[in-house]
This record gives sequence, C-alpha cells and structure tokens, in this order.
Amino acid sequence: MPLNVEKISSNRAFGGEFNKYKFNSPVLGGTTTQFNVFIPAQASEKLSPVLYYFAGLTCNEDTGAWKGGFIRDAAEEGIALVFPDTSPRGAGVEGEDESWDFGSAAGFYINATNSKWSKQYNMYDHIVKELPEAIKELGIALDLSRSSLMGHSMGGHGALSIYLKNLDKFRSASAFSAIFNPSNPECQWGRKAFSGYLNGGQEEGKSSDATELIRTVKGQKVAILADYGDADKFYQEKQLLPENFVAAAKEAGFDESQVQVRSRPGYDHSYYFISTFAPAHIKFHAQHLREY
Amino acid sequence: MPLNVEKISSNRAFGGEFNKYKFNSPVLGGTTTQFNVFIPAQASEKLSPVLYYFAGLTCNEDTGAWKGGFIRDAAEEGIALVFPDTSPRGAGVEGEDESWDFGSAAGFYINATNSKWSKQYNMYDHIVKELPEAIKELGIALDLSRSSLMGHSMGGHGALSIYLKNLDKFRSASAFSAIFNPSNPECQWGRKAFSGYLNGGQEEGKSSDATELIRTVKGQKVAILADYGDADKFYQEKQLLPENFVAAAKEAGFDESQVQVRSRPGYDHSYYFISTFAPAHIKFHAQHLREY
Repeated sequence: MPLNVEKISSNRAFGGEFNKYKFNSPVLGGTTTQFNVFIPAQASEKLSPVLYYFAGLTCNEDTGAWKGGFIRDAAEEGIALVFPDTSPRGAGVEGEDESWDFGSAAGFYINATNSKWSKQYNMYDHIVKELPEAIKELGIALDLSRSSLMGHSMGGHGALSIYLKNLDKFRSASAFSAIFNPSNPECQWGRKAFSGYLNGGQEEGKSSDATELIRTVKGQKVAILADYGDADKFYQEKQLLPENFVAAAKEAGFDESQVQVRSRPGYDHSYYFISTFAPAHIKFHAQHLREY
Repeated sequence: MPLNVEKISSNRAFGGEFNKYKFNSPVLGGTTTQFNVFIPAQASEKLSPVLYYFAGLTCNEDTGAWKGGFIRDAAEEGIALVFPDTSPRGAGVEGEDESWDFGSAAGFYINATNSKWSKQYNMYDHIVKELPEAIKELGIALDLSRSSLMGHSMGGHGALSIYLKNLDKFRSASAFSAIFNPSNPECQWGRKAFSGYLNGGQEEGKSSDATELIRTVKGQKVAILADYGDADKFYQEKQLLPENFVAAAKEAGFDESQVQVRSRPGYDHSYYFISTFAPAHIKFHAQHLREY
C-alpha cells in the first residue's frame, strides 16, 4: 500500500534542498507523522547515502535540523539527512501529554507491547521499516543500501540500539550524550519508558538497550562513535551511564577502532555541545557511507 | 550607574563559552532585557573583537545563536558574538503584543519618538550605547574598539542603518535578506513601524534607512556585504528592495569592493538560507576585525 507521502515545504539549503513531508502512518496507528530530508546537490549526479538523526526528549523532526549544525558538512560530503519525529503525535492515549519524558515526544524508538500504547507507539518499526518505504516513494536519488544512524540523548539510545539490532541494514552509528543503558535500574528515564511501554518492563527493555546489545554482536564488525560532556547534568544524575557501555564493549572484545566513546570536558547536554562535535560525527559516518 | 548585569546560564561551545545575561535596562524603560555572548577560547590569551547579530521579526536573542550557524566560524576566527533581543519585553504598552511585525519582537533598532512608545522602545540606544556598557561590566577579554554588525531582515536593516550612522564605531556590516529601504512607501513593514514608533512617520524614518543613509556617507570608507535570496517571498513582495540600496550606493560612488549585494538563486528568507552563507559573512567580518 502506498503511504501517499506529501511534501509540505521546501527550502534551498547549502546548495541542496531541505524538504518537509507528512503522511498518515499505519505503523503509528494512523496518526500523521512528519519528517525532514536534506538532499545534497550531489544527489542530482549520483545516488546519495543516507544518515538518520534521532532527536531527544521534548524534540521533534525540526530540532536537529535547526540546531544541530549537521547540514553544512553533510552537504560537503554529499550525504542526505533524514530527521524523523520522536513519537506519534495526537495518538489520543490517556496521559500521553502529561510528562516531558514519556508519551508525546518521548517514543524511545521502541515498539510498545503494553496494549495501552501498542497501537500507536511503534517508533522502532516506523524507523526501521516504514520510513525507508516512505523515502523510496519520494523518488529522490538516495541509496538506502548505504544508511547510517546518529542521535542525541533518547535519540542516541535509538541510534545505538537500532544499529546493534540491524548490523546488516546500517553501516555505522553515532551518539551525542546517549542514554547508553536504559534498562539499568539507575536510569530513571529508561525505567519510566520501559515500565510504561513494555509489558515486561525493564527486563523486556534489555532487548533495546545498547549496553546489553553490544554483548550480543561479539565478533561482528561494528562502527560506533559516541561523545558526551562531563558537565552534563543528566550524565551526573546517571541517566546516561556511558561507563557501562564502554565496559560491555570491552568485555565483548571491541577496541577503540570499532567502539569509541569520548568524554568531553566542560560540555553539557545542549545543542551547543552537539553542534560543536557535529562535524566530527558527519566525517565519521562519511568514511563508512562512501564505499559502495 | 552600573547596570548590574547578571549571568543566567553558561554552556561550553566550540571550545569557548556561550553565556546568557540579563539586566534591567534604563534605556528600555526599566524592562528586563536578555542577551547572549559567545566568548571564543582565544579570549583567554588576547582580547577578542566583537560581532553583533541582530535577529528579525518574531525572534529573540536565541534565534541567531541556535539556528544561524555562526559560532563555529567565530570560534575559529577568535571573534566574540553578541546576540541582543529584538525589542523591549513586557513594556506594557497597549497593543504591543497584537502584531507579529510591530511592538514586541519588532523594535526595528530605532528610538521611538511617539510618546506612546518612546519610554521603552529605544533599541537604537540600547545597541549603540547601553549594550557596550553592559558588556564592559562583564569583565570579559573583549576589544569593543573592534566591533562589527550583522543581522537578518529587520536585523539586517538594523545592522546597515546603525553602521552607516556610526562609521567611527563599527568596522563592517553585513546583512541577510535585509529590509534595505524601510522608508520607501512600497515597504509595508517599514510603513507600519515608522508610522507607529515615530511622530514624523516615514519621513522621520529616512534617518534610519540604509538606502537613504548610504548617500550621506559618500566619500567615506565603508565595508558592507549583503545577501538575499531571489525565492524570498518578502523580497518578491517588495519588503526588502535591495535594488534601491544598490542603486543609491552606486550613485554615491561606492563600488563592489565597498558595498557588495548578492542575489542568491533559489534561496528564501529562512535560517536555511542564513546558515548557508553564515561562514562567508564571518570571514568577511574577520578581515575587518583582525587589524588593530
């Protein structure tokens, strides 16, 4: 069934095109979802690889596009950027707008199994299955066989966990101040999300937790880059837990050429931090997306 | 009298520091005003020159900082950035929140002479006189004797008109999709602003109109760069009128080495346009700010 994706707006940007689209998403229970695509000028000559950016709590498809500073380097490298939303919108589930860290704008990039949420809150399938179909419908010169993922905070968790579950589909993943270990009891955000969306709570959440998943891909080829700031209050409150991810990656035999996690002195959780290191992340993905 | 400037927040950004400040502004009738300053890492070694960014209608001190993409290049060049607000806030003048293009977030970088607005709406004096004093109070290693101006739309008008009235104070001015000729009857924004804020209406507005002012500085040394997009609907609606400015500059004897105005095919009025050309504008100002 075609998704009947509709273009809402288009802006020229960095020699390419920045377009906003919408469609009624069957995977998200028939709610209307929006996403942005930056198409670099190079796409007019040859198919461009695709880099997804997953935003964090309270954000939407515009946040990374407006504040991340990604487009400039993507334009230079000839990489297309895709910015999805962070949850279904207007699902009408009771309580979905009551918290800033659960429900609307907090879909956590998983499929809900709790029947209260499972009709609409299926951001994992939306990203992995539905959005590539929607993109194909646009008829843009993109090469989806060369795709990578990046994200911030909740979106960093999304990028890492989706990547580690789909090493055959994506070439690399990077994260800014990711929630590295959401099923850990110390992580309040993860506890709230998994106990709300999943029948099996945090135990079920382990199958969507980067620190758990890195153990399951032992021996395989991975390409992961992550940065976080040591002045990030959410890091200090143990919402991010990068040390657990680093330890698990080491235990699984990965070295820094495959999994690199960097602490950035003085930086916090904001887009000032993200935009500072955005060029390095685009460069990292470009290395992996360049090869056919 | 000290302004008692208070730091509200601080974020590490691009190796430097991004700070938000507030103070009660006598010039703005005692209302509380906020501004942001990016301090590059180089300021710890030698005084940094200062580049102001004036945002457009509906915007505030955060808009350019979040969406303009200026900080990266300013950090490389060792230039400090100052982002003021676009009007007084909470002045309590009747009708100030009724229009998106007049009153709040639409101060037009002039001093009101109409007594209804003249107690608070004095953005010209705020920028030219008060803000430098506020910055001096911060005790940051900035060299205000090397200052330049840039802005977008209403803020482009602000940058150009303030510059042309103060060639002794500022070294260069640049603008994105500026309102180049607000006192022209074709410019609806200018008509509304000047007829509202100024007793003398558009006639009085001529003294704050870049196209009028460029004639008055004939023979002097000026450094102006301006870009606008030919797909900008406000350009098409004759709100910007760059052709009038270009003609006046030419008549006054300025060539492209002094006044350069460029039409950018396909670009519009958005921050996608601004961020595309932000690096070129920073580079332009850096040439003028570098010399002692």
